[in-house]
Amino acid sequence: MSRPALVTETRCSIARTLEALGEKWSLLIQGDSRYSEFRERLGIPTDVLAARLATLVDAGILERRSYREPGARERNSYHLTDAGRELKTVLAALNQWGSEHRPTGFGEVAAFADQAGEAVKVEFVTASGARLDFDEVEIVPGPASIGGW
Amino acid sequence: MSRPALVTETRCSIARTLEALGEKWSLLIQGDSRYSEFRERLGIPTDVLAARLATLVDAGILERRSYREPGARERNSYHLTDAGRELKTVLAALNQWGSEHRPTGFGEVAAFADQAGEAVKVEFVTASGARLDFDEVEIVPGPASIGGW
Repeated sequence: MSRPALVTETRCSIARTLEALGEKWSLLIQGDSRYSEFRERLGIPTDVLAARLATLVDAGILERRSYREPGARERNSYHLTDAGRELKTVLAALNQWGSEHRPTGFGEVAAFADQAGEAVKVEFVTASGARLDFDEVEIVPGPASIGGW
Repeated sequence: MSRPALVTETRCSIARTLEALGEKWSLLIQGDSRYSEFRERLGIPTDVLAARLATLVDAGILERRSYREPGARERNSYHLTDAGRELKTVLAALNQWGSEHRPTGFGEVAAFADQAGEAVKVEFVTASGARLDFDEVEIVPGPASIGGW
């Protein structure tokens, strides 16, 4: 099994997050699934899928539960944790950028909406509630920035 | 050179965005740089760095310009495009999630602030300006969702 260890030396939480997530974000937006359902939908080799699911469990994004149907052996299902559900903001930001800058010509695969079905976007907001355009926001070094990002 | 081609068959703009960006996001938040500066800061092999920069140029995130200092050969510098600058929202969302769920114990490497230095966050906002918590937002299939994500 080619499962990569989570490298923990980087201080950059952006890099650490991407490291935990890997490339198969489609795993996440499916919500709760049995192993066999992931396998059918994603069409990736079994060992690759198993490695990705294990990485997501280690990162606290998915929780593994076992279940057993009558007469069958024990199997695993995977469920988003609270931390996994909070990734929705990241997914929405990626989706917005990709829809504009990496368009497919087919429209969006996933859309984000409130409970009335109105489209929602992610935006920069100050603590006092002002909405800012991205070019009004600056990236500044944080406490861990000494010695590079 | 081990440069990966950009795979364009996926309809999912989240996957397409991550594909364009790869893992070395630290490249992006540095802003404009000469090749030699990237090499010093990132400490990655020359061929890996060249491949990543080429991928980011292909994806329209960085623009390559050439410059020549007196008596030296022509060299390249790299500059964020408008699309590259718009990735700030994605970086901020990743940074927020990672700071909470993949903390390093050193605090944040990068922080996001308005021009007065007040911290800003990314949040879900409706078209009419209401701020929503992430669990008030649903991921719904978009026009390209037929046949999977």
